[in-house]
Amino acid sequence: MKDMSHLPTFDDVIAAHDRIRPYIHRTPVLTSTYLNELTGAELFFKCENFQKAGAFKVRGASNAVFGLSDADAAKGVATHSSGNHALSLSYAAGRRGIPCHVVMPSTAPQAKKDAVKGYGGIITECEPSTTSREAVFAEVHAATGADFVHPYNDPRVIAGQATCSREFMEQVEGLDSVIAPIGGGGMISGCCLTLSNIAPDVDIFAAEPEQADDAYRSFKAGHIIADDAPVTIADGLKVPLKENTWHFVSNHVTDILTASEQEIIDAMKLTWARMKIVMEPSCAVPLATILKNPDVFKGRRVGVIITGGNVDLDKLPWMQ
Amino acid sequence: MKDMSHLPTFDDVIAAHDRIRPYIHRTPVLTSTYLNELTGAELFFKCENFQKAGAFKVRGASNAVFGLSDADAAKGVATHSSGNHALSLSYAAGRRGIPCHVVMPSTAPQAKKDAVKGYGGIITECEPSTTSREAVFAEVHAATGADFVHPYNDPRVIAGQATCSREFMEQVEGLDSVIAPIGGGGMISGCCLTLSNIAPDVDIFAAEPEQADDAYRSFKAGHIIADDAPVTIADGLKVPLKENTWHFVSNHVTDILTASEQEIIDAMKLTWARMKIVMEPSCAVPLATILKNPDVFKGRRVGVIITGGNVDLDKLPWMQ
Repeated sequence: MKDMSHLPTFDDVIAAHDRIRPYIHRTPVLTSTYLNELTGAELFFKCENFQKAGAFKVRGASNAVFGLSDADAAKGVATHSSGNHALSLSYAAGRRGIPCHVVMPSTAPQAKKDAVKGYGGIITECEPSTTSREAVFAEVHAATGADFVHPYNDPRVIAGQATCSREFMEQVEGLDSVIAPIGGGGMISGCCLTLSNIAPDVDIFAAEPEQADDAYRSFKAGHIIADDAPVTIADGLKVPLKENTWHFVSNHVTDILTASEQEIIDAMKLTWARMKIVMEPSCAVPLATILKNPDVFKGRRVGVIITGGNVDLDKLPWMQ
Repeated sequence: MKDMSHLPTFDDVIAAHDRIRPYIHRTPVLTSTYLNELTGAELFFKCENFQKAGAFKVRGASNAVFGLSDADAAKGVATHSSGNHALSLSYAAGRRGIPCHVVMPSTAPQAKKDAVKGYGGIITECEPSTTSREAVFAEVHAATGADFVHPYNDPRVIAGQATCSREFMEQVEGLDSVIAPIGGGGMISGCCLTLSNIAPDVDIFAAEPEQADDAYRSFKAGHIIADDAPVTIADGLKVPLKENTWHFVSNHVTDILTASEQEIIDAMKLTWARMKIVMEPSCAVPLATILKNPDVFKGRRVGVIITGGNVDLDKLPWMQ
């Protein structure tokens, strides 16, 4: 295991960006007149659903994989993930030509399992709880000696995710706020790292499902509160904060807002219908909270991070 | 009724582009490494699903609406349409502040009906056949005196649609072929008009559902063959060619390729899953024919026009 207590700096973000640029897309920013009129805000959507491997997580995964020495890389990489980090690490490992071991909940969408295998990842299934996931992972990790790349607490991962908001600030001038979903806090920590360095006046909002509101409760309590197996359709947001992401969240986040399952589904369907993009339930949480808290965002220029597009098209939440 | 026999020229296209630029998006071109590897071709997708009102048809509709004299405009515009032209004409009329009368099949997707009303269009329903549609329209037209904007045979509409391939040629260098779906032939006629003037060496392919292959049969027979009420999930492609679109198709199209319903559904789902974009069944017909005819496209740079994104999200074809 490597030292997780090292906090990444903005120099790490710049180095990460240079390292991963050949393997990622500079994703586009889309706008919607309709959604602007509906919310009274000026919304800019950073479309990481168009990212390589279908999600922002390829940024952090690529930074970890391509930062390894040849000797360490030869043993491969390993992780546990609710899906997109698994895809992304498999993609990055494939680009470097090294093995990638993935521990994944048996309940993860079939589309994500197939995609991991499609990128060459080797899956070991666990139960859909944090405790089971960590126990099974320990076995796999011991057996392979692969480099552990934590889905969000790894400093290399946080530095990689931070490249997203760096691009965003280059693409859109004068943002008042940035909002992104929060699960384990990797993307939000990346936003905190970048914005506290290059745009400290920009507010940072995190959006979370009411039914998996451990980050919200942690933020209000002042210490990490972790739930073992929350139930929400936003399946990327079930994991708890860890010490490194808690550092960034507790120091730099303006507020955490929550939305109900129905509000998330409605915002997801609305985005598909009006913006014509395929995105995951997790990505709809920010828009759901903007619609729920119009006074917070009205008249402001708001950057919304659409985190991924890996959806099981046979199981859309409004059809269940 | 105005004279439909006037064929638009490339000067009309340039004038149309200048006229409509404030009301349309210059839509992005997306690529997919996965689909390139799958087809062996280099594919460039012109995303008119991100267009205003959700489809390319806003180009032709805006050209007609904003080209009217103030006196003519005051009486409004009217049309019959399977959906997207209705949306687009309603949008354009709304931007000019004039009424828009729409005759629409009772079977059109509810999402399209709602969207027409959302843009202020006034709907009169007809039966889902060409004969019923034309009969009901004649009544509406006589009652209102509105300017008739035919969905695809109107020269102003063809000149407007032709701006799409003009942008496409500016955005992507060295295309060998362009492929688009064909229903009434408005988009394909626009491609023919533009490419025959500025890029005559580029092949033009039209893609059509097997179950609504009247354009294919017309092309092979050398004269227009019209079906009254074909059944296909590609609901934008049910209408027959008319004299102006037939002129362009018969003179400039390289070939017309067809695909089965299942091939269209598979290509649609594949595009949603890998490109993360919401597009209509009609737009999947080109990719379906590319997958079906690899030898025609292998090793070539192929421009694919994604014509629209107005889908009823409660009725996806792979879930029926």
